[in-house]
Amino acid sequence: MPLPARPLPKFLVQRYKGWKATDFEENHSWYKRLADEGQRPRAMVVSCCDSRVHVTSIFGADMGEFFIHRNIASLIPPYNPDGDLHGTSAAIEYAVRVLRVSHLLVLGHSNCGGVDACDGMCRGEAAELEEPTSFVGRWLDLLRGEHAAVAGMNDKPARLQALEKAAVLVSLRNVLTFPYVSDGVDSGDLALHGLWNDIGTGALEHYDAYLDKFLHV
Amino acid sequence: MPLPARPLPKFLVQRYKGWKATDFEENHSWYKRLADEGQRPRAMVVSCCDSRVHVTSIFGADMGEFFIHRNIASLIPPYNPDGDLHGTSAAIEYAVRVLRVSHLLVLGHSNCGGVDACDGMCRGEAAELEEPTSFVGRWLDLLRGEHAAVAGMNDKPARLQALEKAAVLVSLRNVLTFPYVSDGVDSGDLALHGLWNDIGTGALEHYDAYLDKFLHV
Amino acid sequence: MPLPARPLPKFLVQRYKGWKATDFEENHSWYKRLADEGQRPRAMVVSCCDSRVHVTSIFGADMGEFFIHRNIASLIPPYNPDGDLHGTSAAIEYAVRVLRVSHLLVLGHSNCGGVDACDGMCRGEAAELEEPTSFVGRWLDLLRGEHAAVAGMNDKPARLQALEKAAVLVSLRNVLTFPYVSDGVDSGDLALHGLWNDIGTGALEHYDAYLDKFLHV
Amino acid sequence: MPLPARPLPKFLVQRYKGWKATDFEENHSWYKRLADEGQRPRAMVVSCCDSRVHVTSIFGADMGEFFIHRNIASLIPPYNPDGDLHGTSAAIEYAVRVLRVSHLLVLGHSNCGGVDACDGMCRGEAAELEEPTSFVGRWLDLLRGEHAAVAGMNDKPARLQALEKAAVLVSLRNVLTFPYVSDGVDSGDLALHGLWNDIGTGALEHYDAYLDKFLHV
Repeated sequence: MPLPARPLPKFLVQRYKGWKATDFEENHSWYKRLADEGQRPRAMVVSCCDSRVHVTSIFGADMGEFFIHRNIASLIPPYNPDGDLHGTSAAIEYAVRVLRVSHLLVLGHSNCGGVDACDGMCRGEAAELEEPTSFVGRWLDLLRGEHAAVAGMNDKPARLQALEKAAVLVSLRNVLTFPYVSDGVDSGDLALHGLWNDIGTGALEHYDAYLDKFLHV
Repeated sequence: MPLPARPLPKFLVQRYKGWKATDFEENHSWYKRLADEGQRPRAMVVSCCDSRVHVTSIFGADMGEFFIHRNIASLIPPYNPDGDLHGTSAAIEYAVRVLRVSHLLVLGHSNCGGVDACDGMCRGEAAELEEPTSFVGRWLDLLRGEHAAVAGMNDKPARLQALEKAAVLVSLRNVLTFPYVSDGVDSGDLALHGLWNDIGTGALEHYDAYLDKFLHV
Repeated sequence: MPLPARPLPKFLVQRYKGWKATDFEENHSWYKRLADEGQRPRAMVVSCCDSRVHVTSIFGADMGEFFIHRNIASLIPPYNPDGDLHGTSAAIEYAVRVLRVSHLLVLGHSNCGGVDACDGMCRGEAAELEEPTSFVGRWLDLLRGEHAAVAGMNDKPARLQALEKAAVLVSLRNVLTFPYVSDGVDSGDLALHGLWNDIGTGALEHYDAYLDKFLHV
Repeated sequence: MPLPARPLPKFLVQRYKGWKATDFEENHSWYKRLADEGQRPRAMVVSCCDSRVHVTSIFGADMGEFFIHRNIASLIPPYNPDGDLHGTSAAIEYAVRVLRVSHLLVLGHSNCGGVDACDGMCRGEAAELEEPTSFVGRWLDLLRGEHAAVAGMNDKPARLQALEKAAVLVSLRNVLTFPYVSDGVDSGDLALHGLWNDIGTGALEHYDAYLDKFLHV
């Protein structure tokens, strides 16, 4: 039986053809060179799959600039080389060891569905996410340990925002458990950055390690 | 000890400020509404972290349109609800069950470093990737089973391209093992699409299931 | 004080540039000729403003083929040459007398917000639409006389669909009160067509005058 | 006597069936969802009925993206809630108050028959348009006040183009007399845009409020 794969819908064909005839055409010799000589991205960005936060837009990324991993809630697990599948860790390893990026940014955001789901789970309001078969629930276990610190906040939007920012910090702490990441940070070859974007206002905040809080960029 | 997180480098601050003053400003009421009312993306795209292939560019994606997961080589593992961490599977689950996207696109590309690494590993030329501690190697095990079919091709570029396209197809076959994906495909609510982009020429090919080959869009 | 007009948002600039570089470029000599020699559309279509029903898509309209008037609920008022502003009547007059189109199609559709509003108004559930200042309410007065025939239907979706189709028919009856329209119909130079599109299923129905019902195309 | 409505001509049946089997089929689950959940268009476009200017083409609009009103010469009358029929005003009211669009675009174009007719009328060369029974003439009265500023231009194409652009601006000024439009503009929730398309060259110009002229996009 053939794979049930379908042709590209026309609206995407049109969009692609528009890009090919403009952006691509304007840059074809550069893109050709990027293809022939390989990529040399300056930074890795770990951001969320959310359709409302495109790091390519926010940082005006053109081809070749950023190596981008996107997953639910921009989470990075701790270093755990157990021989199993670890897609996020593979992306980190490739960016740091093979591509030797100079910056690693973790970009969280407001109104995050993943963080909201974690909050529901931790408050006992989302039994289905507790099932072992829930990939979303198990993925969000990465954030579970941060919930205690925000659990007492009764204002839900404030609590979720605090948890969104805690997700950025737990990812930064986890990524430091990768030996090549901590080596890079120690040697000064790799800089880490924690960011949080407010979808509705367009604000961007970065984590200031000395003040231990997020400040407007 | 404070987290060794650094302020955002100036070139990114500048880019962000440019975006905020233009794109964001031009669209702020729409983005506000996307924040308040939630996302309703039409499609999920699984694509590669590679800095040279931004699906947001190729399909002119503005905020709100596509839910995007990016990992090494655009690979999707088979359904394996064992209670462990599965970031890619979590993204699939969220897109299909929560967001109910209508399309799921897997976008592979030429000159893929991940696929090249898999080829080296399968040819016995990359011992370090065989280590259990290699996240990249273990991730690329997902593609390992496809190597036999291309192993006889002596022309390396042709072999890699064949393997890049095989990666798209194994991801499509794997994603069909998720019960909600196959249900969606059976009911017609979800359409799958396999794509491959040539970085240097800008060509886009889609997998035609009846001819069992990739055709130019 | 300058008019508060803003530049075109980038996502539209991009879309435009894509069209210009592809569609326009492929057809530039024909479009040039359409500009120099004037339009000669074969049909006029009166359809709804609704973003989900584009007659240009449904009938694959290229430049030059259809003269399209779009208003709330595809309504046409009766002939009333009182010297006041009548935008819909002006469009009818121009299409029939100046452009001498051969077909005049009225295209209604499912899930019509305008028809739903009229239903609410007629059932006494939408006081704000009864205000003289409600342009929407006053416009939907055109459909008011048709409500009695459906008022007894308790199944709301069925009632709205019946009213949507009644809107097509009242528009056809009204357009026949324009002397040049009835002359055209009498002489056979102008054919009228009533259509109804189901957004969710893609079905298209046309009004069969002899059976006095809508049939699938 | 039955309504003299005729079956859909075969060329349109064919076009429809082609669309149904391709575009619709490729997107049916998305269109179903748009039907079930309602439209959420990002922008309203007021454009001309002219068969040579389809905003759906120029901006690659797929279903659900733009709420489109099309009338003769893309004119918007001033706010006049007198309890009479005002189709254009009803469309504005619905788009701004019910759908809460973020952008309102007025798109004029070259070679506009309506603007040409207004010019003839204002120069005393089109007596029939002065008749109270002329819907086209009365509709174009909306543009009459702009003619004085161009009347001295002897080069007809230049004069018409100036009047076409004046039509865009008078529509923008008029739409600002709607209280909910000016409120939206003041609060920043609604952005206005004036555009002019050259049919023959494919050029698109936008009105720059500070320079008070139209510039190429």
